[in-house]
Amino acid sequence: MKVRVTVMLKDGVLDPQGKAIGHALHTLGFNNAQDVRVGKVIELDLQDCTAEEARKTAEDMAKNLLANLVIEDYAIEVPA
Amino acid sequence: MKVRVTVMLKDGVLDPQGKAIGHALHTLGFNNAQDVRVGKVIELDLQDCTAEEARKTAEDMAKNLLANLVIEDYAIEVPA
Repeated sequence: MKVRVTVMLKDGVLDPQGKAIGHALHTLGFNNAQDVRVGKVIELDLQDCTAEEARKTAEDMAKNLLANLVIEDYAIEVPA
Repeated sequence: MKVRVTVMLKDGVLDPQGKAIGHALHTLGFNNAQDVRVGKVIELDLQDCTAEEARKTAEDMAKNLLANLVIEDYAIEVPA
């Protein structure tokens, strides 16, 4: 069962990487790019489990390892 | 117009970060986690443009800056 966990900084948390990419995009002429935010996406395969179990496991993974809940939010995508 | 660009390593390209997360997950007891792959997601706001223009601009951004096309693939999500 393929699972995707997307981890983004919470709104209001400074995103220096996003700022740097924003500046670079403007330098390249993409002047209409605003509010650039960068996060990470983790894709993995969970063996022998249902979609519901996969979602629950991914939640536990995100809380225990993949996301820093103080400054990051996570979203889980499990194919229906 | 909110745009999301997801950049992942191409299949076959070694993903040390993914391997490290995989090991950590197994250490935490998530033994059914396999094929962990890590990528980046860039969210940004494109001012004054249609969904089609936004997709085209995001493609150009990905090709010019956001993705290293030698080892990475990208996917663009534009709200319909």
